[in-house]
Amino acid sequence: MRFSLRFAVGGLVFGLVTASAFAQDVKPDRAIKYRQGVLGAMGWHFGILGSMAKGERPYDKDVALRSATFVQQLSHMPWDGFVAGSDKGAPTKAKPDIWKEPAKFKQYQDALMAATPKLVTAANTGDLGALRTAVGTVGKACKDCHDDFREK
Amino acid sequence: MRFSLRFAVGGLVFGLVTASAFAQDVKPDRAIKYRQGVLGAMGWHFGILGSMAKGERPYDKDVALRSATFVQQLSHMPWDGFVAGSDKGAPTKAKPDIWKEPAKFKQYQDALMAATPKLVTAANTGDLGALRTAVGTVGKACKDCHDDFREK
Repeated sequence: MRFSLRFAVGGLVFGLVTASAFAQDVKPDRAIKYRQGVLGAMGWHFGILGSMAKGERPYDKDVALRSATFVQQLSHMPWDGFVAGSDKGAPTKAKPDIWKEPAKFKQYQDALMAATPKLVTAANTGDLGALRTAVGTVGKACKDCHDDFREK
Repeated sequence: MRFSLRFAVGGLVFGLVTASAFAQDVKPDRAIKYRQGVLGAMGWHFGILGSMAKGERPYDKDVALRSATFVQQLSHMPWDGFVAGSDKGAPTKAKPDIWKEPAKFKQYQDALMAATPKLVTAANTGDLGALRTAVGTVGKACKDCHDDFREK
């Protein structure tokens, strides 16, 4: 029993050490560029939906559904890039508070990921009013996090 | 009849003009950064799968399935950024041939989008050998296009 416990603890420590080694393998620069790339792509497609919502671009159901789907998919991806130590590196607007308040940052991530499926549902209805409402909801989730965790 | 035809043609012309106006609204710099962001994110997640395939990183079914899903989703997104006129702007390795041989470029896009679901299927099996094969197939689709259309 003691023997197997020792193995179990040994395995756990090994697991933590290797996980940490792999996390350290990611250079801060690369992590920063990764998350900026994903967030930028999300902004590109969300911008298309925002333009339709504001009437600056003609409403097109297929284009809206495509961009809404991409925003929903992309909303799960940026967080991998906020690795420990990547508060500095390539130029970044990410505030160091992200790494000081991880629970709060996670709440904002969850709020965004909970909101983006509403964009897809709204785009599927083909109703511009529904899309406008969902754009507002997702835009608020972006803004809430940016207000706290992104430099102006 | 002639009257409604004139309206129909007028509408078509208006549609083309506005579509073109919207395409022109996209600054080359922004399009370049968009596609680089998406391709970089794809490289990030494909790199995780490649490391597992090569045994440089321990195989983890959940991590593999997550990254495979992201690669599959991302593989549909970069092409929007190859807008006309974006062969120059921000620094880019995209060769001008992309805009001279659009049909060939489209074939490479289709080949990649056809290959990436195999990554998800393979990751779902939980079999590292299957994942290795799919990584090879997708890697070849990346390389084929890069060989022709990306500067070294």
